[in-house]
Amino acid sequence: MDKVCAIIGIGPGNGEALVRRFCDEGYQVAMLTRSEDTLSDMEQRYGSATGFVCDVTDSDQIHKALGRIEDELGPVQTLVYNAGAGVFKTTEDSTEADFEHTWKVNTLGLAMAAKAVLPQLRKHDQANLMVTGASAAWRGRANTAPFASAKAAQRSLAQSLARQLGPENIHVGYLVIDGVIDLPRTRKMLPDKQDDFFIQADAVADAVWALCQQHRSGWTFELDLRPFGESW
Amino acid sequence: MDKVCAIIGIGPGNGEALVRRFCDEGYQVAMLTRSEDTLSDMEQRYGSATGFVCDVTDSDQIHKALGRIEDELGPVQTLVYNAGAGVFKTTEDSTEADFEHTWKVNTLGLAMAAKAVLPQLRKHDQANLMVTGASAAWRGRANTAPFASAKAAQRSLAQSLARQLGPENIHVGYLVIDGVIDLPRTRKMLPDKQDDFFIQADAVADAVWALCQQHRSGWTFELDLRPFGESW
Amino acid sequence: MDKVCAIIGIGPGNGEALVRRFCDEGYQVAMLTRSEDTLSDMEQRYGSATGFVCDVTDSDQIHKALGRIEDELGPVQTLVYNAGAGVFKTTEDSTEADFEHTWKVNTLGLAMAAKAVLPQLRKHDQANLMVTGASAAWRGRANTAPFASAKAAQRSLAQSLARQLGPENIHVGYLVIDGVIDLPRTRKMLPDKQDDFFIQADAVADAVWALCQQHRSGWTFELDLRPFGESW
Amino acid sequence: MDKVCAIIGIGPGNGEALVRRFCDEGYQVAMLTRSEDTLSDMEQRYGSATGFVCDVTDSDQIHKALGRIEDELGPVQTLVYNAGAGVFKTTEDSTEADFEHTWKVNTLGLAMAAKAVLPQLRKHDQANLMVTGASAAWRGRANTAPFASAKAAQRSLAQSLARQLGPENIHVGYLVIDGVIDLPRTRKMLPDKQDDFFIQADAVADAVWALCQQHRSGWTFELDLRPFGESW
Repeated sequence: MDKVCAIIGIGPGNGEALVRRFCDEGYQVAMLTRSEDTLSDMEQRYGSATGFVCDVTDSDQIHKALGRIEDELGPVQTLVYNAGAGVFKTTEDSTEADFEHTWKVNTLGLAMAAKAVLPQLRKHDQANLMVTGASAAWRGRANTAPFASAKAAQRSLAQSLARQLGPENIHVGYLVIDGVIDLPRTRKMLPDKQDDFFIQADAVADAVWALCQQHRSGWTFELDLRPFGESW
Repeated sequence: MDKVCAIIGIGPGNGEALVRRFCDEGYQVAMLTRSEDTLSDMEQRYGSATGFVCDVTDSDQIHKALGRIEDELGPVQTLVYNAGAGVFKTTEDSTEADFEHTWKVNTLGLAMAAKAVLPQLRKHDQANLMVTGASAAWRGRANTAPFASAKAAQRSLAQSLARQLGPENIHVGYLVIDGVIDLPRTRKMLPDKQDDFFIQADAVADAVWALCQQHRSGWTFELDLRPFGESW
Repeated sequence: MDKVCAIIGIGPGNGEALVRRFCDEGYQVAMLTRSEDTLSDMEQRYGSATGFVCDVTDSDQIHKALGRIEDELGPVQTLVYNAGAGVFKTTEDSTEADFEHTWKVNTLGLAMAAKAVLPQLRKHDQANLMVTGASAAWRGRANTAPFASAKAAQRSLAQSLARQLGPENIHVGYLVIDGVIDLPRTRKMLPDKQDDFFIQADAVADAVWALCQQHRSGWTFELDLRPFGESW
Repeated sequence: MDKVCAIIGIGPGNGEALVRRFCDEGYQVAMLTRSEDTLSDMEQRYGSATGFVCDVTDSDQIHKALGRIEDELGPVQTLVYNAGAGVFKTTEDSTEADFEHTWKVNTLGLAMAAKAVLPQLRKHDQANLMVTGASAAWRGRANTAPFASAKAAQRSLAQSLARQLGPENIHVGYLVIDGVIDLPRTRKMLPDKQDDFFIQADAVADAVWALCQQHRSGWTFELDLRPFGESW
C-alpha cells in the first residue's frame, strides 16, 4: 500500500513546500484547496500530486474530498492541516463574518477534517495529523482578535485530538510558527525587511516531516519555529 | 447617573449570584438571557433588576437588547459576560453543530456583546467588562474538544479586549473557574461529592466584584478560582 | 487569640503598604528585614508593628525570627513573602554570586520560610501564605537571566506549596506584578514616565488582602497586577 | 576543523544515547561527568569520545574542563546540557541542601557552562546549546518542590539564553521530556509498567540532533517529548 498524504491548504508558501516534501519522500500526495486555478497550477508543477477541490468552511466538501482521496489513492496515512485565514483587526473593527470565517477556516475545518479522516488514519499501523499553527495561539493582541482567538481554539482542539489519538498510535502535532513566511506577497508587504527576517517555507516542511519521523516512544505535540535573529 | 450593570447569562449559579451582588452594591441591573421564564422568575426575586430577552447566538438580539438597556436604564458601566455552553465530547463524537453552538455562546457572543456595549462603556470615566471563563481555556482534554477550544478562544479574545481597552480605562478581566459550581443540578450529577468539592456561586460573584473595585494602577486581567481541597 | 501577620521584606513600596494594611485590619504585624535601620524607622511609623532582624539568605535566621514571633506575638496566621532581589543582566554578564543571591532571596528564602512557618499556620483554622512575584516568572528575557529564572523557580515553588497546603485550609497565593512600583527610587530611575506608568504599592496590598478574604470554595492561586495603560 | 560536541551529564540513558549519536554523526565528543568510573566505562565503549571529570556544582571545574576540551579537541560547536538531579519531595520534607543541590545541578550549572562555553561557540559560524529539561518545568506539584522549581528556573534561563544568542547564530533549544526514560534503574522502580510506558533514550538523542539540524530561518526553542500512549 502506497503511503498517502493529504495536505489541506495549498498554495505558495508552506502548502507548496509540504507538497514538494511529501512527494520527495515517496508519498502519494493529495492537495486540497478551494481554488481550482491553484490546483491545476500545482498539478502541473508536481506531477505526482493530485488535486481535490475543497472549501474547508464546508464540512460536506471536506467529507467528500477525503472520501474521493481514499477511493482514488487509498486511505490517508498523514494529514497536514495547513488551511489558515487571518483577520488582523480589533474586536471593534471586526465584523461577525470576520470572526466566523477565521474560526471556520482555522478551527472548525480542522475538527471536520479530523472527523472525516479518522477512519482512514486508523487503517494504518501508525498515522499522523499535523497542524500548522501560529504564535498568535499563545496570546491575543489588541488587533489580532479574530485570528488569535481562532488560533487559540485550533491549538486547544489539536491538544484534545493528541490526547485522544496518541494511544491509537496516531501522532498529532502542532507547529507554532512565530514569524512571517518568505513569499512574494509578504516581501511586497514588508519591503524593508532583510532576508533573515523571514521563515523559509521549507523550514516548516522540514519540521512537519521531522515530527512524522519521530519514534513513538518520544512524540512531540508542540514546537515553535522562529527565525534565528528575531526578538521574541 | 445610576450605575448600570448588564449581566449576560442568568439563571441558577453564577448568574443569580452576580445579579444579587450588583443589586446589593446599588447598581441598576439588567439581566439578559434567552429564556423568558428564567427572566420573569428572576425579576420576581430581584425586584430592582430588569430582564431583557436575548439569545447570545444572535448578534442582532445582543445589539438590540443593549440598545434597550441604554434607553431604559442608561449606559452600561459594567458588563459581565457569563453566558456559557459546554459540550463535553471528543472531536469524533461532536457534531458540527456542537462546535458551532459552543463557540457562538462562549466566544462570538462575547465579541458581539463587546462591540455593542463599547460605546456605552466609553460614556463612563471608568468601566468594566468581566468574563467568567473556565480552566478548560488552558488545556484541551480528549473529551472536551468543543468546550475547551471555545473557552481557549474566549480567553484569547478577552486578552485582545484587555490590551485594547485598558488604556481607555475599561477594565477587562477573565476569571478562570476551575471546578464545579454548587447547584441542585450539579449536586444531582455528582451525588457522591462532599460539600467542599463545589465552588459557591457567591465566591465567583465576590471575585468579579473584587476586580471591579481594583485601583487602576494595579488591574488584574486573569485569576483562577478553585475549591481549597481540590487537586489540580 | 490575636491574628498575627508576618511580612518578610519590608521597606518602601509593597512592604510598607502591606504593613500599613494589615495593621489597619487589626493584625499584630511582624516585620522582617535584614536592615536594622529600616526596622527601627518602620517601628516608629507603625507603632503596632514589631520588627525582627532577618536575612532571608540565612535559613537559620528565618527559623529563629519566626520562632521569636510565635513566642512574642503568637502563631503566625498570615505570612507574606515580599523579599525580592533583582539582578538584570544577561547570563554572560552575571556572576555566579548574582545567580546565587537572586535565587536565595526569591526562592530558597521562600522555601525556608514556608518550612519554618508551617507549624504555626497549622495552629489556625485557616491560614494564608502570600507571595509577591513578578511577570518575569512567566518568561526569561535576554537581560533578565538571574532575576527571571529565580522568579520562575519562586512561582513553581509557590504552586507546589498551594497544591500541598490547600487541602489543609492554608491558602497560598502568587501575585504576578507586571510593572514598576511607584517609589522615589523608581521615579528617579525613570524620570520621563507619567504617573500612570507606575503601580501604587497600595494596589498590591489591596490585592494581597483581597486574596486573604476569599471564601475557600473559590481560592485564587495566581493573579496578575498591571497599570491600566500599559501595553503587555 | 573537526566539529566538537560537549555533553554534560553522561551515564545510562539520555547521556549515553547522546554520546553515541554525536559520535555516529562524526563529531569529536567530549563527555563530562563527576564520576571517573562512568567516564572510563564510557571511554571504553565509545572509543572516539573523550572523558573529562567535572562536577557541575563547581563552576571552577566547569570552566577548567571546557578549557581543556578546547585545548585538546578544539572549540566546542555544540554543547548539550544533560546534567540533572531530582529531589521529589514536598517543601516541608526537603532540606535546604535538597533545594540547593537540585538548583545547582539543573540551573546554576547551566548558567556557568553557558558562560564558559560561549567564547568557543562564537568561534563557529553556527553553534548549538541544547538543554534536556522536563515537564516539571511547566508546573510544580505538591511533592516535586525542589525538582520542579529548579527545572522552571532552568527553562527560564534557557529562554534568556535563546533570546540573547539567537541573533549571534547560536541555537538554544529546550527539550521538555514528559515521561520516564527506559533504563534498568527505572524499570526496577516501576516493575508493573509496560514497554510503551517508557521513553527510549534514543528518541531524546534524535530530537536533540533534529534541533541541531534545523535551518536557522525556522529554529525551535522548545518541544515536548512524550510516549504515544501516555495521558497528559
